[in-house]
Amino acid sequence: MNSPSLLGRIRVVLSRPSHPGNIGAAARAMKTMGFSRLVLVDPKLFPHAEADARASGATDVLAQATVVGTLQEALVGTVLAVGMSARRRDLSAPFRWAREGAAELVAEMQAGEDFEAAIVFGNETSGLSNEDLALCHMPLMIPTDASYSSLNLGSAVQLMCYELRLAALAPAQAPTCELDPAAFENIEGFYAHLERVATASGFLDPAQPKQLMARIRRLFARTRLESDEISILRGLLSTVERPKIR
Amino acid sequence: MNSPSLLGRIRVVLSRPSHPGNIGAAARAMKTMGFSRLVLVDPKLFPHAEADARASGATDVLAQATVVGTLQEALVGTVLAVGMSARRRDLSAPFRWAREGAAELVAEMQAGEDFEAAIVFGNETSGLSNEDLALCHMPLMIPTDASYSSLNLGSAVQLMCYELRLAALAPAQAPTCELDPAAFENIEGFYAHLERVATASGFLDPAQPKQLMARIRRLFARTRLESDEISILRGLLSTVERPKIR
Repeated sequence: MNSPSLLGRIRVVLSRPSHPGNIGAAARAMKTMGFSRLVLVDPKLFPHAEADARASGATDVLAQATVVGTLQEALVGTVLAVGMSARRRDLSAPFRWAREGAAELVAEMQAGEDFEAAIVFGNETSGLSNEDLALCHMPLMIPTDASYSSLNLGSAVQLMCYELRLAALAPAQAPTCELDPAAFENIEGFYAHLERVATASGFLDPAQPKQLMARIRRLFARTRLESDEISILRGLLSTVERPKIR
Repeated sequence: MNSPSLLGRIRVVLSRPSHPGNIGAAARAMKTMGFSRLVLVDPKLFPHAEADARASGATDVLAQATVVGTLQEALVGTVLAVGMSARRRDLSAPFRWAREGAAELVAEMQAGEDFEAAIVFGNETSGLSNEDLALCHMPLMIPTDASYSSLNLGSAVQLMCYELRLAALAPAQAPTCELDPAAFENIEGFYAHLERVATASGFLDPAQPKQLMARIRRLFARTRLESDEISILRGLLSTVERPKIR
């Protein structure tokens, strides 16, 4: 799996961020997703205590951040740059959605072991200028509600790093199965036991069973019973069917 | 497209949030993705100026937020609750990743026009307690880097709302679910009844309950109980707890 090194070759570029808190939030968002390379273009306030506070345990990302004067400098060495935008522009390359763009970026980077890429985020208020977006190869949009598209800068970084992480790790490792499924005969033993208790208690009338056991089977078929769950259920059944000592 | 109303039926529940700024960030994250129903369980500080500031243009979500005392109250009326966790737990239902869980939640909600659901987030420092997670049907994890999994609360809300939005907007509808899921309070009523019977029969020793009820919850959380299954199970419990007529 080459994904960790792949993510390490993607830099996050914040162009002219106004609020140091957002720089810290971006650093934290990056680190949770396995990113470490932060480049700041002409930040208004950096370093700053507010950035450190919001970075929480990701102050190492801030400490290693590079500060440059222009987006051109930030992109030196990259073979691919995606620019994030909250709105379509008339004269840009065709827009893609974040998920689709992440898959494409990862696929391109897998083609070359030393390829470097950048994801570029604009200022909190004005976004990326048309000139800055023109320096990027691929403009991306994060889908938002039509009536309120105002993503926080740290949130946008979080979403994009998440999409890249999942694209890099695909095919997604399913969480390992945590079930220890019971064998057929054990489950049948449980059904028989339950039927016995239901009959002895009078809940199930053998002359008119209706669909009771079919419904019980349908219920537990969905749950995929585990071996030790069978033990618990049968233990409970054994206890309730024992005549009470008075 | 029924997704806007579908998202409107999903409440975001923050259990015992410590920082009002995170409540505001959650409100903003929700609104960007088309969510509006925020429920706060015993928030440390709310309302609060810091919440308003971080909410930016989403103060309407804060104004409409509901404050309750317990997670049980927050879940009344829901047929499905997913609980977010940063780590696996021993006795919970099997974990799913956020993306997979979002697809499943949306598919279930598409089966009933009045189904309501909840996504539940724990405290910033301690996460959801095992007891709180046991009230949820499906525990979800957001994939993070192994070395740093400390997602900000607002970021976690952002990611989960984003996944749900994309799942709701996805054209491919999963096969319709044939379940008629029971409401939270009915399922809790069943657990309480079962615990009573297990105690009266001597199977459960209240002085040494071990993990019995946690294991029972884990089993039935997987099965997603239906309303009439609850009736059957409670009918059986009522019958076995009645003194036998001899």
